[in-house]
Amino acid sequence: MKNIVTIGGGTGQFVVLSGLKNFRAKFDLSLKAIVSMADDGGSTGRLRDEMGVLPPGDIRQCLVALSESSLTMRKLFNWRFKKGDLAGHSLGNLFLSALEEMTGSLEKAIEETKILFRIEGDIIPVTLAKIDLVAELNNRQIIYGEHNINTSQIIKRIGIKKLYLSRLAKGNPQAIKSIKEADVIVIGPGNLYCSLIPNFLVSGIVSAIKRSKAKKILIANLINKKGHADGFFVDDYLSIIEKYLTPGIIDVVIYNSRRPRASLIEKYTEEGEPVSFRKIDNLATKFYGANLLSREIYQPDPADKLSRTLIRHSPKKLAQAILKFI
Amino acid sequence: MKNIVTIGGGTGQFVVLSGLKNFRAKFDLSLKAIVSMADDGGSTGRLRDEMGVLPPGDIRQCLVALSESSLTMRKLFNWRFKKGDLAGHSLGNLFLSALEEMTGSLEKAIEETKILFRIEGDIIPVTLAKIDLVAELNNRQIIYGEHNINTSQIIKRIGIKKLYLSRLAKGNPQAIKSIKEADVIVIGPGNLYCSLIPNFLVSGIVSAIKRSKAKKILIANLINKKGHADGFFVDDYLSIIEKYLTPGIIDVVIYNSRRPRASLIEKYTEEGEPVSFRKIDNLATKFYGANLLSREIYQPDPADKLSRTLIRHSPKKLAQAILKFI
Repeated sequence: MKNIVTIGGGTGQFVVLSGLKNFRAKFDLSLKAIVSMADDGGSTGRLRDEMGVLPPGDIRQCLVALSESSLTMRKLFNWRFKKGDLAGHSLGNLFLSALEEMTGSLEKAIEETKILFRIEGDIIPVTLAKIDLVAELNNRQIIYGEHNINTSQIIKRIGIKKLYLSRLAKGNPQAIKSIKEADVIVIGPGNLYCSLIPNFLVSGIVSAIKRSKAKKILIANLINKKGHADGFFVDDYLSIIEKYLTPGIIDVVIYNSRRPRASLIEKYTEEGEPVSFRKIDNLATKFYGANLLSREIYQPDPADKLSRTLIRHSPKKLAQAILKFI
Repeated sequence: MKNIVTIGGGTGQFVVLSGLKNFRAKFDLSLKAIVSMADDGGSTGRLRDEMGVLPPGDIRQCLVALSESSLTMRKLFNWRFKKGDLAGHSLGNLFLSALEEMTGSLEKAIEETKILFRIEGDIIPVTLAKIDLVAELNNRQIIYGEHNINTSQIIKRIGIKKLYLSRLAKGNPQAIKSIKEADVIVIGPGNLYCSLIPNFLVSGIVSAIKRSKAKKILIANLINKKGHADGFFVDDYLSIIEKYLTPGIIDVVIYNSRRPRASLIEKYTEEGEPVSFRKIDNLATKFYGANLLSREIYQPDPADKLSRTLIRHSPKKLAQAILKFI
């Protein structure tokens, strides 16, 4: 059996997990997802504020990705209310937050949900501490909270001096254990500062990754998020991730080599431009490019208050690329 | 196999169904619940207003009663949010309403929920029409809406001239079919005007009951609801129900013969006083009295915006009484 641990946040992990899920039996894969707990936007942010729960949104997406229950039930878990006081909330977020309050812990809530929705694999909050993400920019400006950082348009221009958590957060022992036992660690895709790096700010996570003998794979994003990653090349993603881990630690970077249709790029120009690859001299890390694009155009849910990337990875193509290194 | 059809609303049907469920295997019972669609109070009322869905509250209680899933999941379905915009909503109501909007029908929502929560038995909305309950009192005053009628304190004093639905509602064909195929029909317990009789106002239901060869059992309430049924005897419940059906149609009235503890009655005097039995000459109907009281004192959920009866039937004792006539 191969222990695969994914590290990230919402949509990116959804794609990786739902892709790998379909190869689970064939390659005897055990899937564990370590999920950032810094999210504070949209439905998740309201539940954090009103109920004092841990952020359910990214956990929900991982649960749906690994669920073997009916398509209807998986759709329902991601379904958002459109009207009234409830508008914007996803049912799965309400479900997880209610269960967390009822059982007293997000981990118990995940365990119960796994049974109900026939979920195989583990979904592990990177920490059980209630934390906020904070960015100090090079001009000393402080941006407080993941959602504010995510929507800021000046991150790239001013530059991040320091990204940190509002308080010391101990790594979830389950997360550290799963990293230790991993054969493969898959990082990304996802927003660098808001989905990926917040995992590395939790104490014990980076040292566990450094100690781990697992093959470490980074999935580069498809789109350079506007205001965050303008003009980035594939290797820039590697540099930034390795700045928070340690230089040379990533074995493989998987990137998309197929340019999205021009009409699509133009249509979604407010998201950012496609990430380009350039050859660089790097002895330690292998770069693997393939067509990873989904042919489906993602239809945003009008009830979703957060902006999401519309050009997406194909779960299947991404899984096939990852499996080349397993 | 014995086909048992229960007719009523929320809490009363919960007790009957959860009691009978435990005898299902032993007596080879098939359980079907026909549920009133007039409810418009609390969480249910808000969802009707904001989403335009059918009332989920009573359906939810029947689903929980018949679920074989874990205690945690059954508790979760009835769990209510305590804070913020969501306060007072039960998660099960949100779940059913989301699923109704997503699938386009309450019946499909119930079918999907049955699979997920391992529910055996049928839960059948008495009608799929969106209706409101209206009471015209003897002083010509109109009280519009189930919740307003339920909380009115003058129903008994002024008297109801006519109880009707805001518009013609066709009986759900599934409800009519299940009545036709029933071996036993159990009506009640529950609030007469707000939970039981609204079922009989739906077109096709009364004629189906009249045509049915099933044994017809009425469960008298434990408490005379204040402002609605002050001073009622057991036979008054029979008279009122038969006024809406047809005289002599009920075969058996099951009532509680054990007086609740005086301290309990006093404590909950605002709910009403216990129903008393008096002997009457009635050749057609058998009256069966037994100790039907639950020893557990029901703990109201502070997040529940509706008042609920605190002196309750024991599901087991009630089921045993019903089974004497099957």
